[in-house]
Amino acid sequence: MRKSNLSWALLVALGLPLSSAAFAAETHIPDEVVKDATTLRDRALNDDTAWAIVESLTTEVGPRLAGSEGDARAVAWAKAKFKALGYDKVWTQDVTFPKWERRSEHGEVLGHSSQALALTALGGSPGGTVQGEVVRFDSLKALQAVAPGSLKGKIVFVDVPMPRARDGHGYGVGASVRRRGPGAASRAGAIGYVMRPAGTDWHRNVHTGMTGYDDQTPIPAASLSNNDADQLARLVALGKTEIKLALDCGFNGTYTSQNVIGEITGSGKPDDIVALGAHLDSWDLGTGAIDDGGGIALTMAAGHLIKQMKTRPIRTIRVIAFANEEQGLWGGRVYAESQKDKIRRHQMVMESDSGPGIIYAFGGSWGTEAEKAVKQMYDVIAPLGIAYTPQQGNAESEMELMQGSGAAAAAFAHDASRYFDLHHTPNDTLDKIDPKALQQNTAAYAAVALMAANADGSLGSGPALVKAKP
Amino acid sequence: MRKSNLSWALLVALGLPLSSAAFAAETHIPDEVVKDATTLRDRALNDDTAWAIVESLTTEVGPRLAGSEGDARAVAWAKAKFKALGYDKVWTQDVTFPKWERRSEHGEVLGHSSQALALTALGGSPGGTVQGEVVRFDSLKALQAVAPGSLKGKIVFVDVPMPRARDGHGYGVGASVRRRGPGAASRAGAIGYVMRPAGTDWHRNVHTGMTGYDDQTPIPAASLSNNDADQLARLVALGKTEIKLALDCGFNGTYTSQNVIGEITGSGKPDDIVALGAHLDSWDLGTGAIDDGGGIALTMAAGHLIKQMKTRPIRTIRVIAFANEEQGLWGGRVYAESQKDKIRRHQMVMESDSGPGIIYAFGGSWGTEAEKAVKQMYDVIAPLGIAYTPQQGNAESEMELMQGSGAAAAAFAHDASRYFDLHHTPNDTLDKIDPKALQQNTAAYAAVALMAANADGSLGSGPALVKAKP
Repeated sequence: MRKSNLSWALLVALGLPLSSAAFAAETHIPDEVVKDATTLRDRALNDDTAWAIVESLTTEVGPRLAGSEGDARAVAWAKAKFKALGYDKVWTQDVTFPKWERRSEHGEVLGHSSQALALTALGGSPGGTVQGEVVRFDSLKALQAVAPGSLKGKIVFVDVPMPRARDGHGYGVGASVRRRGPGAASRAGAIGYVMRPAGTDWHRNVHTGMTGYDDQTPIPAASLSNNDADQLARLVALGKTEIKLALDCGFNGTYTSQNVIGEITGSGKPDDIVALGAHLDSWDLGTGAIDDGGGIALTMAAGHLIKQMKTRPIRTIRVIAFANEEQGLWGGRVYAESQKDKIRRHQMVMESDSGPGIIYAFGGSWGTEAEKAVKQMYDVIAPLGIAYTPQQGNAESEMELMQGSGAAAAAFAHDASRYFDLHHTPNDTLDKIDPKALQQNTAAYAAVALMAANADGSLGSGPALVKAKP
Repeated sequence: MRKSNLSWALLVALGLPLSSAAFAAETHIPDEVVKDATTLRDRALNDDTAWAIVESLTTEVGPRLAGSEGDARAVAWAKAKFKALGYDKVWTQDVTFPKWERRSEHGEVLGHSSQALALTALGGSPGGTVQGEVVRFDSLKALQAVAPGSLKGKIVFVDVPMPRARDGHGYGVGASVRRRGPGAASRAGAIGYVMRPAGTDWHRNVHTGMTGYDDQTPIPAASLSNNDADQLARLVALGKTEIKLALDCGFNGTYTSQNVIGEITGSGKPDDIVALGAHLDSWDLGTGAIDDGGGIALTMAAGHLIKQMKTRPIRTIRVIAFANEEQGLWGGRVYAESQKDKIRRHQMVMESDSGPGIIYAFGGSWGTEAEKAVKQMYDVIAPLGIAYTPQQGNAESEMELMQGSGAAAAAFAHDASRYFDLHHTPNDTLDKIDPKALQQNTAAYAAVALMAANADGSLGSGPALVKAKP
């Protein structure tokens, strides 16, 4: 049901709740805003700000494991970068979490086929040196089905290949083997745990990532490369195979990092926010280019390019470089908690945390009053080769927390076919970013953010929207 | 000049030198031999013996650095495998060489961009921990041009990218930077040496390989990954960059390994040899699948398949699994020395040491009397998609020594486009071998070897052929 701008203005004047679908006026993107967003889109397609940002972050800071010295340098870098990019306001939120350290790691096959195994400790693993016979499982379920205590003295090997997919859906199984496997192995009495990685590459790269132990006793847990998983599977098939796992890692106190937040202050509704997020931390093995340097770069660049426009946006553009996503959305939870009474103030949220691959679809969740406005946004980015998937898709990571609380969310689906070759590996380096894809990404985020900031009404944020979340 | 078989028989009876082109009879492959070779070719195209061999070697033995415990296991494996494959005679030659060991290695950028650098010690490097400012050179020549002593206390970085090519020609430059760079750096007074690898991959793999110091004082020398070379180049461009290099490696006494030789004894001329070679050792980082497990597999399989034929070959098929190729053709030199008076007894030599990629060309060097016979060989393998490049191409590695002494040689050009992504890296693992290409390789080597063994005359081996070598 279409409403005129007049009746919308009337509703505002009457102070009626904008987010209630029953009474909400239909929101619209004014023509001049569509025109500005189109200009912004085309400018972003030829701009290398995002590239310069990610080059700077991955080169000058490099790896930035949450709680490490690189984390501190990344925070300083982000504050300086926001300022250099012309953001009006830069502020931080403290984020405190248990500090996990990786010091050294080594794996080897013992006996008549003795050889090194490329592996890496899973985040959250305790240190320890264990050796024992390998028992292979071809599913997590099979491991979970064994009797408690029945694998006493063994080292569990869960060997589940992860399928490659544009939408990255194969990560669901892989990540679940990583998160739940060590606890299940511990419950069965095993002294150690190795797994085929939650990753799709065969370049001898190890894939780290967070694990947990549910309520079981933590045991040393590591991920092999896919090549080493192949090798171990062949050796186990040939006969009894013993391996040694020597991990020096573990939790060591707590650390306080920061969410670093840059804002382009809105000219008309400065307390209303279009929030763009990505995470500043990375795993330690690579330089965190695709996970999530690209996200940091394109969101920072989007705000910068909006600031360069002749007209300042009506609502505030807020870009958040989140602390410690990798070990459990620590920064995202601090932000969401701090904004729990300001969900309605979030005109729209969006995030980039599945790599800066080409965006192939645009969706999200929003109120019914925003259907036309979001379609207008889509029409501006459609020429970038993007399909429309209205009311589908998650904002990802930290912003999914906000979406879950009812913030209207844009969800950009990036091609993740290669993402799980790289993420959490030593091979997540700058050369993996396609500069053209990064420009397309920046163009899409910037154009949508600008239109959201300058829409003539709400996009439906508020607790009532929670049910609309896919 | 064509000669009849009769006049060839007459020359033999008169004891005239066969290798002298002026008097040599024209050699021919009898029709039934061509037919057998065609059958053998087609059988090899559907046979998985070579795959089973390389799977066994890379899995059960794994890495086999010359002088390591893996070297000893590889020798035992090769002896057992030749026997299991039905070779008539298995014998060894001792090969003694200086033993180089890699124990640990670490590199890092110091200061405000501190971060780890993926690197690996070059074979032959001494151990040592050094730190200093990086001086980058974009060519070996530029480094060689600096004044002696002018880089005192510095760490040299030679940054020359290696081009990808089907014929692998880019390795020439890369390997020369590796072999000559450390000596040139030492001469200039540098305390350490790092280089962009002699390799074409961007998967964060380090590429090792042998270096030397000419007459200069050895200094710690390592190769970065291409990604880390990019990173170091960017950091150096930003300003003064210090790195630390901590290598624990070096020569440690001598070691005696063995060339392992399997023979299918010839039925008519058992002292005449068709020799197929590959090297049994590998670098330690990977499992030596493409370098040179594939070569070991296809030469061993070729002999085995020839043995399976109804008729035993007239000349002996000799397959040599050479010791320590990687550190300087040690096994090849022992073999060549042992055969220096038997060049004429080598009907033909061939080797596989540029990876088991698809063979796209067949050439080599042979006497003029063998021109027709070699063309007949080519005609049998032409349907495998192979071009003919007569009197061109080197037999490679160990067999190039024999070719250089005048042995007639078959040279198979394997597609090496991907070879330098993998060789000498941790990523040289079984999954990199294309089973279909390995079958094509085996088919070509086996068919040519059989025809050489059953030719009705010489292929021209002898010192006189040396000038024919390209």
